[in-house]
Amino acid sequence: MSADRRNDKGMFEAAEVGQKISKAEFDRSAAELRIQLLQSQQALRSAAFPLIVVVAGVDGGGKSETVKVLNEWLDPRHISTHAYASPSQEERERPEFWRYWRDLPAAGSIGVFLSSWYSTPILDRVHRRSGRSKFEYRLRRIADFEKALADDGALIVKLWFHLSRKAQKQRLKTLESDPTQRWRVSDRDWRHYELYERFVEAAERAIMQTSTAAASWCIIEGADPRYRNLTAMRQLHSALEQRFEQERRQRPTVAVDTTLSPEIPTDRESQHSNGQRTILSALDLELDINKKAYNSALAKQVARLDGLFRRARQQSLGTIVLFEGWDAAGKGGAIRRLLSGLDPRDYQVIPIAKPSDEEAAHHYLWRFWRHLPRSGRLTIFDRSWYGRVLVERVEGFARQAEWRRAFAEINDFEDQLVQHGLVVAKFWLQISKDEQLRRFEERAQTPFKAWKLTDEDWRNREKWEAYELAVNEMVERTSTHDAPWTLVEANSKRYARVKVVRTVCDALATRLGD
Amino acid sequence: MSADRRNDKGMFEAAEVGQKISKAEFDRSAAELRIQLLQSQQALRSAAFPLIVVVAGVDGGGKSETVKVLNEWLDPRHISTHAYASPSQEERERPEFWRYWRDLPAAGSIGVFLSSWYSTPILDRVHRRSGRSKFEYRLRRIADFEKALADDGALIVKLWFHLSRKAQKQRLKTLESDPTQRWRVSDRDWRHYELYERFVEAAERAIMQTSTAAASWCIIEGADPRYRNLTAMRQLHSALEQRFEQERRQRPTVAVDTTLSPEIPTDRESQHSNGQRTILSALDLELDINKKAYNSALAKQVARLDGLFRRARQQSLGTIVLFEGWDAAGKGGAIRRLLSGLDPRDYQVIPIAKPSDEEAAHHYLWRFWRHLPRSGRLTIFDRSWYGRVLVERVEGFARQAEWRRAFAEINDFEDQLVQHGLVVAKFWLQISKDEQLRRFEERAQTPFKAWKLTDEDWRNREKWEAYELAVNEMVERTSTHDAPWTLVEANSKRYARVKVVRTVCDALATRLGD
Repeated sequence: MSADRRNDKGMFEAAEVGQKISKAEFDRSAAELRIQLLQSQQALRSAAFPLIVVVAGVDGGGKSETVKVLNEWLDPRHISTHAYASPSQEERERPEFWRYWRDLPAAGSIGVFLSSWYSTPILDRVHRRSGRSKFEYRLRRIADFEKALADDGALIVKLWFHLSRKAQKQRLKTLESDPTQRWRVSDRDWRHYELYERFVEAAERAIMQTSTAAASWCIIEGADPRYRNLTAMRQLHSALEQRFEQERRQRPTVAVDTTLSPEIPTDRESQHSNGQRTILSALDLELDINKKAYNSALAKQVARLDGLFRRARQQSLGTIVLFEGWDAAGKGGAIRRLLSGLDPRDYQVIPIAKPSDEEAAHHYLWRFWRHLPRSGRLTIFDRSWYGRVLVERVEGFARQAEWRRAFAEINDFEDQLVQHGLVVAKFWLQISKDEQLRRFEERAQTPFKAWKLTDEDWRNREKWEAYELAVNEMVERTSTHDAPWTLVEANSKRYARVKVVRTVCDALATRLGD
Repeated sequence: MSADRRNDKGMFEAAEVGQKISKAEFDRSAAELRIQLLQSQQALRSAAFPLIVVVAGVDGGGKSETVKVLNEWLDPRHISTHAYASPSQEERERPEFWRYWRDLPAAGSIGVFLSSWYSTPILDRVHRRSGRSKFEYRLRRIADFEKALADDGALIVKLWFHLSRKAQKQRLKTLESDPTQRWRVSDRDWRHYELYERFVEAAERAIMQTSTAAASWCIIEGADPRYRNLTAMRQLHSALEQRFEQERRQRPTVAVDTTLSPEIPTDRESQHSNGQRTILSALDLELDINKKAYNSALAKQVARLDGLFRRARQQSLGTIVLFEGWDAAGKGGAIRRLLSGLDPRDYQVIPIAKPSDEEAAHHYLWRFWRHLPRSGRLTIFDRSWYGRVLVERVEGFARQAEWRRAFAEINDFEDQLVQHGLVVAKFWLQISKDEQLRRFEERAQTPFKAWKLTDEDWRNREKWEAYELAVNEMVERTSTHDAPWTLVEANSKRYARVKVVRTVCDALATRLGD
């Protein structure tokens, strides 16, 4: 950015021209717009997506007043408004975005976010608590977050209320002179005013880096309340109507997009199915361990885990272990062994099956964010977010575009876990098709295990090859340095169990600096 | 309790006899019991109720070890284990039982509670932080809590692990001498040991007052791990099997219980339907206010509420306002006026319709506990827990026994809200049957209001008299000093809105000491 550029108004120029609307014009336009907005909100109620409204801008720009108008005009029963102060203890124990995920609106409803995910990054930059590159990094994270939501269908409207330096001063003075409004102005507001230039610079950068096709900013001059409110409401209305219109027009295109992947194998997939050596096929499923060695190795690793985990607890280190694998691969047994030395107060097992209806009304990662462990705890996912690129992909529950972008979304999600300090261990339990058949038959014949075997297991088995392709691609695309996959040779349950417990121990030991 | 009584062992006598089980006997019994327990757990998975296991007892009694065994024997994927330390900030901002409600298991699963709702009351008594009557009061609250859960179907098993004073000392010494176990013994444990007599006294009282038919205590000698674990597991197994057996036998009885109330009117109800003067019929629905007076009165009350609410926020005073009323009685409009002066960041509106599937798998009050406001905030319930004694009663979604006991459950729930310091305002919006018809027809004819009118509204209208009976009984039974009903004459929307806002103001003003 050149010095010249700094001197002019940049992207905010258009929002300092003194836009005003007369009361007569406002009343005329508002009456009609209000009914239209109510109708849009009503249409949204039965839509399959939520509306996310981010409201930000300079102090005194009228953010909370406009949000108030929004709640007055629309039916407030289906709007939730959120603002964030310093994180609570429970929030601090999770990754930064946990609290925002918690509050995301369900399909059909409206979530309004004030002092949202933009607030801390911008203020940290203004007060020079973070440098330029940290700031850029956080902005990228925000863009990724919003992209994931928008890709999932969320309609995102971002309103930035701007005031010129002069207008901000005037606004603060006016508020202060009104005894009923004076409380709105704090010392903090005046301190921010002193930092106006820095604030505008950081805001400009934030807006530039996060104005994406899916979630673009609308900059609104905040000085005149009538202009500001009417413009904001028009923006919301047109965003909703555009979206409805787009859905009406795009229906045929969406249908094409629902094609299941196994029917259009990519080059990579064709290779796999041509019997080439793949990640899974390279595993030596003959690996075994005799009973005596198993007992002693398992006991040793379980005791080791107990000690490591206690140290992890003391250091407030949280752990996530997830299990994926073929039906009957032995996930349940491995989980039981893994937990056998631990105190049940310290862990939680989350079995992942069909989402509840609340979960289904949110982004598919929402249900996992819900269950992130507090510091010093362990959460086991028995099946996980990888369902998106496994069962949902193969069974066609997710469209191709959905599961394809899931690789990046998942890497981003896990990156946030790791950045927050969590230890992440991911296991794929691999058995051969023959071994699975043997286990199915054994289950069918053992009365007290028969319930474990369902028709679905047999159906899934028929799609073995499609699943194999999906697993190989999953491992290739989501095995990262900090959250690597461990492929477990599980034809021998004993071998698999020891490997699982040892791997978790090693991951903890590494993190603890052993 | 006589001095003699104090000298003997009281209810714990049987748990100090030195029960032991040999390893051979344990192995023999355990092998079989384990399979049986797994089968019971499997049967539970598809049952309509949860299993709640409370584990308590003297320090060193083996609580956490047995919970560990429980998690090893059973499938840990459907067990959640909870222990509670000092409440977090988020927990402190809600009534004491909020955190326990949050963690209650859903139907089909098992929740294990260590250092649960018994822990603080007993320890407060031991350390003389609470007197005898406070202690008794808290025990009654616990008994009510467990009764409400059991009445709703939860199976509650409470295990108390006892050690004699001598055995406790021995146990602590043994743990300390084992380098791998030493960490289990804290100074706190030794301090508790010093207070053994007091602890046993408080425990005895707690067990006596909370051993109800629905949730009785099982006292188990804790000294020998094999005896303790086997006895605990047997207890769980037999409780589950008894319950399954009972359900098989009781099916016909349950069918009788599903009779809808309107078909067997009580004396009270017959009176009402005989056209006698009732609470509702006594309202003067002609009350009205002209437009000018309305505008000025509403503006005044809205401004008053703004000021009062800001003070409430400063004083961390939370508020709950709930609305019930006939279809088209004007709840939405009243809510909008009530909120019009407030900052949307400070309130949340919870519209109550059909429960989500997670909500349906819990006690009917669970979904309301979820949404209790933090300190200084306002939560509006648009319809509420009173659905139990209104729509669920009239439509037969709740059995007679269920809605009959709901009056006490609701009073208890609201008492907890009030005790915690929340201001609770409850509104019934009353309109005449003719006025409802007029509004339905108006809605049907106004294009942008037509969506508000559903077939269900017409169907509900046909049951006007049954609803009237239910409303009268609800108000009579649940209008308490601290959480009174306000009946709002709502044939005039203007009159109703002003009355609602004024009533909330008055409630806040009273609490703020104006």
